[in-house]
Amino acid sequence: MIQIAILGLGTVGTGVAKVVAENARQIERKLGEPLQVKSILVRHFKNGPFRQLMTDDFGKIEADDDIRVVVETIGGVDAAYEYTKRALSAGKHVVTANKQLVAERGCELLALARRKNVSYLFEASVGGGIPVLHPLTQCMAANRIDEVYGVLNGTTNYILTRMVRTGAFFSDALREAQAKGYAEADPTADVEGIDTGRKICILADLAFGYQIDPEQVPTEGIGKLSLRDVRIAQRAGYRVKLLGRAVRLPGGGRTAYVAPHLIPEDNPISGVEDVFNAVMIRGNATGEVMFYGRGAGELPTASACVADVMECLQARPRREEISWSADTAGFEGPGELKTRHYFRIEGSLTDAAMAFGQVEVLSEDGETAFLTEPLSGDSAARQSRLLNVLACMRVLDG
Amino acid sequence: MIQIAILGLGTVGTGVAKVVAENARQIERKLGEPLQVKSILVRHFKNGPFRQLMTDDFGKIEADDDIRVVVETIGGVDAAYEYTKRALSAGKHVVTANKQLVAERGCELLALARRKNVSYLFEASVGGGIPVLHPLTQCMAANRIDEVYGVLNGTTNYILTRMVRTGAFFSDALREAQAKGYAEADPTADVEGIDTGRKICILADLAFGYQIDPEQVPTEGIGKLSLRDVRIAQRAGYRVKLLGRAVRLPGGGRTAYVAPHLIPEDNPISGVEDVFNAVMIRGNATGEVMFYGRGAGELPTASACVADVMECLQARPRREEISWSADTAGFEGPGELKTRHYFRIEGSLTDAAMAFGQVEVLSEDGETAFLTEPLSGDSAARQSRLLNVLACMRVLDG
Repeated sequence: MIQIAILGLGTVGTGVAKVVAENARQIERKLGEPLQVKSILVRHFKNGPFRQLMTDDFGKIEADDDIRVVVETIGGVDAAYEYTKRALSAGKHVVTANKQLVAERGCELLALARRKNVSYLFEASVGGGIPVLHPLTQCMAANRIDEVYGVLNGTTNYILTRMVRTGAFFSDALREAQAKGYAEADPTADVEGIDTGRKICILADLAFGYQIDPEQVPTEGIGKLSLRDVRIAQRAGYRVKLLGRAVRLPGGGRTAYVAPHLIPEDNPISGVEDVFNAVMIRGNATGEVMFYGRGAGELPTASACVADVMECLQARPRREEISWSADTAGFEGPGELKTRHYFRIEGSLTDAAMAFGQVEVLSEDGETAFLTEPLSGDSAARQSRLLNVLACMRVLDG
Repeated sequence: MIQIAILGLGTVGTGVAKVVAENARQIERKLGEPLQVKSILVRHFKNGPFRQLMTDDFGKIEADDDIRVVVETIGGVDAAYEYTKRALSAGKHVVTANKQLVAERGCELLALARRKNVSYLFEASVGGGIPVLHPLTQCMAANRIDEVYGVLNGTTNYILTRMVRTGAFFSDALREAQAKGYAEADPTADVEGIDTGRKICILADLAFGYQIDPEQVPTEGIGKLSLRDVRIAQRAGYRVKLLGRAVRLPGGGRTAYVAPHLIPEDNPISGVEDVFNAVMIRGNATGEVMFYGRGAGELPTASACVADVMECLQARPRREEISWSADTAGFEGPGELKTRHYFRIEGSLTDAAMAFGQVEVLSEDGETAFLTEPLSGDSAARQSRLLNVLACMRVLDG
């Protein structure tokens, strides 16, 4: 009998308890012995199926040598960080879906885990139930990873899908997402791309092996996205998606950023709809590989946590390849990265051509929408400074 | 310094030697020491960059205690089976992309590896460079896997893509694939679905935990597929794809089969084109997860082999979860599996309605093409026995 504790009993915590109970047979067959939730840390006791397991004293979990793995589902940094440090220091493995904590403090917590000879795993922090981090670090270990990008936030992708399909304005689509429970009452972290930014940091940390500070990552959400641009893009054979993107730069540096992009329809990422997520990883040997599925939800996220629990228990002594250097040198903004750019301007084709030379016109309906040749973000900004720019987005070039 | 041997120097073997050399820095960073190819087994010595490593004596590799991992890239069963057994018996890990050997003898070789406390890994045998087997067995370990299906053969998918895009007949598309090097001179194993059958067996073995004998798996290829059906399906919003499919049956049994299917356009598998592969795995907690990328090719396949080499060396003592029972009981043909069926008959809508009741008509152009309500394969065969059936395919229902 292997015993674990869960910290927090929200959506993910409840899901973990359910998956451990419902899939007990599968889990026991793989582990060789049963897995059991011994304690659940809560702030307030509530009636329900897990009432007998609840405690409000983390010290009891910390001191209980029978508890070998702690699943942290509190979220945020403060208490989650504190308890994670104490659990690792007590020689317990820790598993989490907490992308904020991993993006901000992951490097330090991984180092602590290494010293204590235990694992700190967080597959569920990116892509929910979609296996991404393990395939990246393990199955693609023989590759130099050159790029990672993806649709990493289900809420914003649901909103964008509604805008494309039903012609809804952003504001209406957001209200619809809130009504369906896909967006929170305060949707800032999703809509402004902060959630996507944390996830692309974790992906980039693992892909390139060096820490990226989330605060350094330029982040543009979809709050100012116009329905007009979504429609022009669609008619021209593109879909607008909010991407997190991390690229190894030719000079040896690396960049990461979050922004809405025009995605050509023949890129499989363009077909990722509703609350689904997808991550594309480009290795120098494997080429592009895509991972697709439900990026959130109680059971998918919980099942990724439980798989990590099993991994902690099976990997002896610990998984070495989930780690990265604390060194943040070599990070650059995306200004030098070259792509085509989409512009919509209050102005004529002549204005566009004077700024950018040859352009591909997408629309001339009172305003002018066009695509530039590939150029760096810095050049795009510089060359457009005399234009009256209504919208600007990068194109995801193949 | 960790030393390995490669058996065979064809496409995959050459790729393994290249990946080890080209990505030496990435590999050393993860392993903590350099990885080196010490010997390559060939039948005939050839000049080239690896001339000094060649040997035609397997006994030397077998007796060399410095060689910790053997990468078998010979293919087929005879010599590959013999050398794999001898290498495992000598206490060496073995890695392969050989789907035929794994599908037919994998269970026995895994048992031998277990007794010798070494690993037998074969991520590259399904989906080339796409991580599938590790995510299935490890990241989705907390799920009960209910279904696996996919576009598993690039050659047939290339042919089908050409038929859809350019309206080519099967025979012309096959010749084009041969001219481009995507199909072999004798394309039987690809076109008749034998290759797909081996891959779905390996996926099903790992997903369900019990051996499926490839000879028991009903296998229908695309050799008899008519351009007419491809076009009718396309106009109705479906794509025709050759699927390998394995399903856990309600009664506790399991089935697997290979056949062309009509895939609704909103299923992401429908958009998998050219030589790309995709595998969909449905877990009871995670839901559907898809893995997509290049399913073949020198470097993708080789990089999956090298990742397995690294995994052998890092997993101590060995990966336990890559295994299944030799028990073949519980396998059933797909006759009881219910789906909608596509029919094209020499006959009228009245003929169709008399056989199947309500149907959805797709075409009435001299012949009648229609979709039935969901029914078992056995019922479809029974109810259609008085019809003059020109074509019949299952629909992949969501």
